Amino acid sequence: MRDVAVIGVGMIQFGRRDEDTLMDMLAYASLKALDDAGMGDGTVDSVYVGNMGSGMLQHQSAVASSLVDRLSLLPAAADTVENGPASGGSAIKNGVLAVASGYYDTVLVAGGEKMREVTGWRATDFVATMTHPQAEYPYGITLPGMAGMFTRLYMEKYNVTREMLVAVSLKNQEIGALNPYAHVEMALSKNGIYDSPHSVVNNPVIADPLHLYDACPVSDGAAAVVICALDKIKNPAKPPVVIAGFGQATDTQTLQEREDPTDLKAVRLAAQQAFERAKLKPSDIHVAELHDAFTILEIAESEHVGFFKKGEGGKAALEGKTRLGGQIPINVSGGLKARGHPVGATGVAQICDIVWQLRHELPKERQVKNAKNGLTVNFGGFGNNVTAFVLRRVDS
Amino acid sequence: MRDVAVIGVGMIQFGRRDEDTLMDMLAYASLKALDDAGMGDGTVDSVYVGNMGSGMLQHQSAVASSLVDRLSLLPAAADTVENGPASGGSAIKNGVLAVASGYYDTVLVAGGEKMREVTGWRATDFVATMTHPQAEYPYGITLPGMAGMFTRLYMEKYNVTREMLVAVSLKNQEIGALNPYAHVEMALSKNGIYDSPHSVVNNPVIADPLHLYDACPVSDGAAAVVICALDKIKNPAKPPVVIAGFGQATDTQTLQEREDPTDLKAVRLAAQQAFERAKLKPSDIHVAELHDAFTILEIAESEHVGFFKKGEGGKAALEGKTRLGGQIPINVSGGLKARGHPVGATGVAQICDIVWQLRHELPKERQVKNAKNGLTVNFGGFGNNVTAFVLRRVDS
Repeated sequence: MRDVAVIGVGMIQFGRRDEDTLMDMLAYASLKALDDAGMGDGTVDSVYVGNMGSGMLQHQSAVASSLVDRLSLLPAAADTVENGPASGGSAIKNGVLAVASGYYDTVLVAGGEKMREVTGWRATDFVATMTHPQAEYPYGITLPGMAGMFTRLYMEKYNVTREMLVAVSLKNQEIGALNPYAHVEMALSKNGIYDSPHSVVNNPVIADPLHLYDACPVSDGAAAVVICALDKIKNPAKPPVVIAGFGQATDTQTLQEREDPTDLKAVRLAAQQAFERAKLKPSDIHVAELHDAFTILEIAESEHVGFFKKGEGGKAALEGKTRLGGQIPINVSGGLKARGHPVGATGVAQICDIVWQLRHELPKERQVKNAKNGLTVNFGGFGNNVTAFVLRRVDS
Repeated sequence: MRDVAVIGVGMIQFGRRDEDTLMDMLAYASLKALDDAGMGDGTVDSVYVGNMGSGMLQHQSAVASSLVDRLSLLPAAADTVENGPASGGSAIKNGVLAVASGYYDTVLVAGGEKMREVTGWRATDFVATMTHPQAEYPYGITLPGMAGMFTRLYMEKYNVTREMLVAVSLKNQEIGALNPYAHVEMALSKNGIYDSPHSVVNNPVIADPLHLYDACPVSDGAAAVVICALDKIKNPAKPPVVIAGFGQATDTQTLQEREDPTDLKAVRLAAQQAFERAKLKPSDIHVAELHDAFTILEIAESEHVGFFKKGEGGKAALEGKTRLGGQIPINVSGGLKARGHPVGATGVAQICDIVWQLRHELPKERQVKNAKNGLTVNFGGFGNNVTAFVLRRVDS
């Protein structure tokens, strides 16, 4: 298996982008990634697109075939990969395997979603299509509903408090407000929306015990990366970042079939696989992007990947251990909470953010000093399909 | 790059399957493939699903994540691959790369579609979502419409006659009637529907010059294959069939942007890549499954892959050169024309049919004698994304 590196990354601001089609967004992010790789005229052998909803939301199929044409990369191969909100991670994985196999040298992976095509309950319904088609969906379960139940269980079992959840949303919106690509440009403050952790002023309950600001927004957006076989990189425009390891694991689709519903087995296994392959351990990681679609998930994932012991992630968040400058800075991009969560884009955007960190390209108020190793976790369904990547800076 | 072989195949009968969900069909075909591989209790590292329409037709996403759970193959990785009607071919390609990379040893690839969820114009509209979202779809173009224009051009440029098109549908429905998995179980005869090549009795024009029996039906169905690294196969249940080569190429999404709209560049390039990688040439192939969604496509593809010179494919079909026992038997399964075309299933079903041929497992009225090498072509959009595979029997 050949070593594979990221040589270019690109993102457009997430948010409400009424003026752009899904294809526009994918093309913009891809052009930025190709430019970043210094490949204006370069060749790409294959294009992957991570996308969940083009059929349902845009009534359009085969978007990867369209993108390769739009970018004038013909006759490059093109495939769309769908894996719910982990579509971006799955697309990256398949791009990595395609290069690792030796069949393709340079692959473009773009992820994008235009979710604000629909509004209100329709957006929630779109996301609910990842639930079990017989055992869950027909009964009206939604992802916020599942997250609410999961949060309640986690709070009871591990003494997670409302203050700990609030600490995550405050942290992510504070630093996300500094990220030019973030959807939510507004920092929260304890004296404003969070005047008290139990306040419902401007922060109503959406699925008890979760409040509005415990959930990520519904976003449009796209991100892209160019990956290449490490031994084929000549005169890199930027320091290459190696995809040192990746993992992917599945769990039961329904929460009720899990032995312990608070155990996110797929997160644990995916991260383990990624660490093993990278020959690194959780304590070697300097910065992480975790899938905080809901505040509880950042806490739970920080434990399941091995940064903290089970039941200690909430306390760690409250104590600032996951802030910039802390023991392990998590979601210095603002995470899904602030950057937004255009589902197919998220897994790709996480890689972009870690690459910027490992290249030391971010302004100092968001840069993790001397970051060399990073981790991403992209979470599909309610943790029934999870991808994880360990990235490593190559020092010359 | 490791050699990759098919060790198990499974298919369910295509047609109208009102009683089965998409997941049911994917599971049935997968279980058959796992059984065929003698892996009732075996381990699968990763599952790929080729599917185009689960979001639009079933309002369901992440079907691969569901399938891995349904089959109790947890925590195997799972990804859905979408590439219009070439989704099956794309899923196989990604499965092959995953094994070739050395990351996974054994991969299950299932393809399926439940297209009869919708009827009438809605089925045509579903397929039309693969057309260009700005330049084609809003103007009401359909795939039969495109195929009609393509057929007219081809007839004029290469003297293809109506008799040649009829020869393809007669051949495919005659042999397809012997295939227990085929949707259309009815042979046609010149004295029946085709009493004259220009007859419209029971065979009305659908998109001039194409008649009803020039087009494949709208089908439900699923197929699956188990692939494995050749060097990891111990005591195979059946003779392994090596995926000796594959290719994938793209072309402009719109027909009007092509220099010569009768030149199916992506078919030509995908087949060339597959032959090069397999170190074989068209004359080495003993049996082929080509993507005859419309009769003209079987003729055009038989030329573009190199079986016949440009303009000679129609004459070859008329002369019986593509029948069982002829120079190069094409679509001995009945092809899309008779087996049916549940879009996500087709590329996988083609591999199943070639594997049965190369294992010499078919009854003699459908078996190509001593077949050792086979070819498949899976065609997406109007030829804007095409996959091709060359398969080779491993003789012990």
